[in-house]
Parts: sequence; structure tokens; C-alpha cells
Amino acid sequence: MDPIIPVVLCGGNGTRLWPRSRKAKPKPFLPLVGNTTLFEATVLRCSPDAGFGPPVVVTGALHLEHVEAQLPDPAASRVIVEPEGKNTAAAIALAALQLHADSVMLVCPSDHHIGDVAAFQAAAHEAAKLAAKGWLVSFGIAATAPETGFGYLKRGAPIPESGGFSVAQFVEKPDFQRAIGFLADGGYAWNGGIFAFRAGTFLDELAAHRPALAAAVRDAALQGCSEGMRFHPNAEAFARIEGESVDYAVMENTAHAAMVPAAMAWSDIGNWQALHEALDRDPDGNAARGPAELVDCANVLVDSDGPHVSVIGVRDLIVVVDKGDVLVCTAGSVQKVGKLAGAVNQ
Amino acid sequence: MDPIIPVVLCGGNGTRLWPRSRKAKPKPFLPLVGNTTLFEATVLRCSPDAGFGPPVVVTGALHLEHVEAQLPDPAASRVIVEPEGKNTAAAIALAALQLHADSVMLVCPSDHHIGDVAAFQAAAHEAAKLAAKGWLVSFGIAATAPETGFGYLKRGAPIPESGGFSVAQFVEKPDFQRAIGFLADGGYAWNGGIFAFRAGTFLDELAAHRPALAAAVRDAALQGCSEGMRFHPNAEAFARIEGESVDYAVMENTAHAAMVPAAMAWSDIGNWQALHEALDRDPDGNAARGPAELVDCANVLVDSDGPHVSVIGVRDLIVVVDKGDVLVCTAGSVQKVGKLAGAVNQ
Repeated sequence: MDPIIPVVLCGGNGTRLWPRSRKAKPKPFLPLVGNTTLFEATVLRCSPDAGFGPPVVVTGALHLEHVEAQLPDPAASRVIVEPEGKNTAAAIALAALQLHADSVMLVCPSDHHIGDVAAFQAAAHEAAKLAAKGWLVSFGIAATAPETGFGYLKRGAPIPESGGFSVAQFVEKPDFQRAIGFLADGGYAWNGGIFAFRAGTFLDELAAHRPALAAAVRDAALQGCSEGMRFHPNAEAFARIEGESVDYAVMENTAHAAMVPAAMAWSDIGNWQALHEALDRDPDGNAARGPAELVDCANVLVDSDGPHVSVIGVRDLIVVVDKGDVLVCTAGSVQKVGKLAGAVNQ
Repeated sequence: MDPIIPVVLCGGNGTRLWPRSRKAKPKPFLPLVGNTTLFEATVLRCSPDAGFGPPVVVTGALHLEHVEAQLPDPAASRVIVEPEGKNTAAAIALAALQLHADSVMLVCPSDHHIGDVAAFQAAAHEAAKLAAKGWLVSFGIAATAPETGFGYLKRGAPIPESGGFSVAQFVEKPDFQRAIGFLADGGYAWNGGIFAFRAGTFLDELAAHRPALAAAVRDAALQGCSEGMRFHPNAEAFARIEGESVDYAVMENTAHAAMVPAAMAWSDIGNWQALHEALDRDPDGNAARGPAELVDCANVLVDSDGPHVSVIGVRDLIVVVDKGDVLVCTAGSVQKVGKLAGAVNQ
């Protein structure tokens, strides 16, 4: 089988990880778990020896320098520079237009953490086999908590001679009670935004369900220009694209939606508490990056870029120091970080 | 009546207010409540128009620069520079030796906050009247909580034609149950370390109860030298002094101990929670110095010397940022601040 082409999407601001994640250098480009950035880890787990081809990265001009500085092999990596953010359907279509119609592409967000790389690679190959047969495949990430921040996939019938299933239903973010029901049912998985399909299949489905969007992306690509390994879509044509997510534009409409289950210690690192849970912690549940002294603490995360942080007598708290900003936040309040004045007005 | 001579003692490190209070610039010399430092406020509330004479300050060489920078009238203020700390009995004796035997001295720690200055001044004059008659007078500070960190004074019989009482007993720091009993009894007051006596009376009592200590201080003073308004006791003689508190050396032994009640919104600002309680707070009990954003917080104190501090969803917490150190501490853990590595190893 031909190598799988990783299509790495670098969008989003990660404001809920302020003050570490900043507009100028957001979440994907930070070493949040270990010493590797989330973007680097995304590219590295799609390695040639695991059956992947060179990546195609889709990013914006603001973050191009970070992408090129962090790519392990820039000379072999195609980088598509979007003039502005137009959501995932357009980004994936731009990448698909750079590829042979028979290439199998694996769409990977660049701001997630995956603890079990072998499980990821196994699921990727399972998904690629189905993609080669014409399926549009979502990773169905094993749900481990009643999360209300994710969409869910309802598992349908098994697809013969594969580890995959048809998708019975795409479910939008549920409320807490429904999420508990999904977890109890066992037939629901998180939709983590990782997809596999033939490039040609994707473009055909996009043209069928969103003809205007497909045509606008094609115009922007045809009138675009290359500069070394960079590709710049035409900005004027690009501006006419209606931004829509790949879920709404394609996955929820296609008759060929499949899913492969993936239990791979996945986290979207969507907030400070999620990051805390993805880190190695001591027996009291504490984790510290940077100089810190914790006394009588439990489930405390300290993340400092320099200043010494002392914490006494606290439970379930996040303390972050970054470039002259200090954040102190309970585990239960992390969703509000993105609405702080500092995060909004950066 | 002659002016009362304020004797202002500048000792102690205030490590429980680390990281704001540092060895090189401790608690008395910081504007912890409002824009005036505790030392400045101590001197200012003993003002000439309230019947006080020029102050005598006792300090160490390390803090001399802060004393002289913060004295409102350095040219009129005597400063005794101790070669080393020898506790309060020696410090007070040194000051007494600088004064006329009939002068009434009011011993004032420089690291307390007094919210009601008029009440302080009234109590000072009441104490001075008793002191002039030969009493050794302690301020009996109205106890408002079952504090275990202070000594207590048990009120004895009223002293005729005065607002004072004899002292039935000096009580060392009690445990919590005893402290609750004292509060319920109503006959006990905090010993806040504010004293009034004639200089001659004090020296006589010290000589009676601690003859070696009295002689050693006298030697150090006799062999000392003046330098402008500074007085330097002889270091060699001073080193032979046995350090002891005025309570142990004199107050608990004299037959002439008196007290005047003082309800004057007093706080020793002994830790971050005590400071928080002395500050103006918003209706949710929050107080902030420096740039801060508090969301869903109650009883939170933020004290930052520059960095912007954002706090979400927290109750009963202290957050301090000072010169590259960050402290996060629950209200119930403030006694442990002084034992942090940063506070100990400064």
C-alpha cells in the first residue's frame, strides 16, 4: 500500500491555555507535554518507517515561521499558507488538491496529545485501508468521561473484513446527561477531528454536498502560486470561500461515513485541567514545570517560565506564570480562562 | 505634662510575609496597608501635636538606611544602632539610658497596624499618666478572636483615678481551647508589646530583676559613641548581653505592672491572612494591590509588584508576586509561609 499522507492542520488560538498559549505562538507550537511541541509530535508520529509519506501542513501566515522552524524535514514538507482561516473543509480541500486523487490522506489536528502512538498508527492503517476502498473514515476515540465539549460518533454496523464500522449518526456536543448516557451505552465514541479518505473521494463528496465551496477552493488553488515548498492560494478567491467545518460540509452528509475505534490515550489538551491530566503527576496528583515548591498540595499544576512558585495547602488548582502574566484557577473554572481580559485583549 | 517619648523598635524579619518581606527590607519598611509603611505609620501616630516628643528608634545596621529614609524628621530623631539583635529588654534599656530618668517612654513595635489612631493616642496618654506615677504599663489590646499566637494579660483591680488596671497575670501563648476561654471570660486582653514607663523606673526594675543584663547594657552604652543623631553601643560589651524579652525580664517580675485597655483596630500583621483582614476589601472579601482580574472569587488577596494576576473560581486564597517569586497559599496555611525554602534561604 502507498504511504499515507499526513495532512496537518494548524489553526485555532488555544486561548483557554492562556497565558502560555498566545496568539503569536499558540498551543500547537508549545512543548506542553514533555519537550516536544504538539505540532512536532503530530508530525513525528506520522513517520516514514510507520508507513507515512511526507506531510502536507495547512497554516496561516502568522504561524508559518513556527511551522517551518519545527518541521523535522522542511525540505520534504509541503506547507499551504492560508490567507485567512476558513475552517477545516477548505483547509482539507486545499491539501487534497495538492495530492494525487488516489492518495490516502490522514487529516490530523496539530493541537492534540496522543499518549499511545502505536495505537494511533494501527488505527491510521485500519482507516487507510477503508479509505482506499472509498470510505470517509473518522477516528472514533474511546470516550473515557462524559465530555460535553466534543461531538460524538454513534457506531453502526461492522464493515466486513475490516476493523471499522459504519457511522450510525454524528452527534453534536451533548449536554451532561446525554453524555453520561453515551458513556453508559458504550456505542458512542468522541469525534476527535482525525479523518482518512482518498483525496479524490473527498473532493468528489465536497463537490456533491457543497458545490460552491468546492469551486471556490479550486479557484483559489488554481490561481495560487508556489514558492519553494510553500503554496499560497489566491487571496481574493480564497476570501470568497464560505468557512465550514469538514463535519458539517462532508462527513454528516456522505453515504460512505465509516469509523475506526481508537483507544490511544488521546487528549485535545483543551484547557489547563486537560493538560494537567495528560502530564506525569506525583502520587498526590501534583505536576510542576519550572522552579516550584509544593507543600500540603494535591492535584495542583504549576507551570512557570521562570519565576519560582511556592504553593501551600491547596487542592485542585492551576498556577501558570508566563511572560509577566500569572493565572490562578481552580480545576473547575478552566473553561473561563479564554474569557479573561488578558486572553481576549492580547 | 511633658511630651511622651516614642521608643520605636525595629527588629524581626517578618518571614511569614515572604516574599514581600525580605531580610534586606522586612515588614516594617513596606507599605503593607495603604501607602504608608508600618514604620512610618508608627512614627506618625506619635505626632508632636498629639503630645509626643521626638522619637528614639532602635534598629540594626542592616535596616539603618530604611529607618533614616523613612523618618519624617531625621534631624530630630535619635537612632540607636544595635550591633546585633539582643531582644527587647536590651533595646528598651538602651533607649532609656538616652533619656532623662523622668521621661515617660512609650515602647512601640514598628511592625503593627493600628486602624484607630485616636484610640491609640488616648490609651497612650492614659498609660503615660500611670507611668508618671511609677507604674509599668502594658497596652491590653481588646481580644477579638481566640488567637494562639499572642500572650494575654489578665485584668486585675481598677487603679483608682485612672482608666487602668493592675495586671493579675501575664499569660503565655495559650492553646486554642484556653484562648476561647479567655475570649468568653472577657477579663483577658492581648499583650501587643506596647509599654509605657518612666525611663528611670524601667532601669531600676531591670537592675532589680536582671542585674547582669542591666549592667551589660550600661557598659555598652557608656562605651558607645555618637555620630550625629546616631548612637552606636560598644559592640564588644553589647555581645555580652543576654538577650531576653522585656516581658520575661521585667513585666512579669515587677510589683507595679498595670494595663490600659485599648480597642484600636490593632493587628500585628503577623501573616498574609492578618494583612488581608487589615485591608479594605470589596463586598466579596477580595482585595488586590497591583494589576489583577478576579472572577468568581471570594476572600482572595492578590498582592503583585508588577505582573498581571488573573484568578478564577477561588475562595480564601492569598496570591503574592514579588521580585520573581510567586506565593499561592490558602488562608489556613499562612503560618507555613516562613518555613518555605524561599523564605528560609534568602
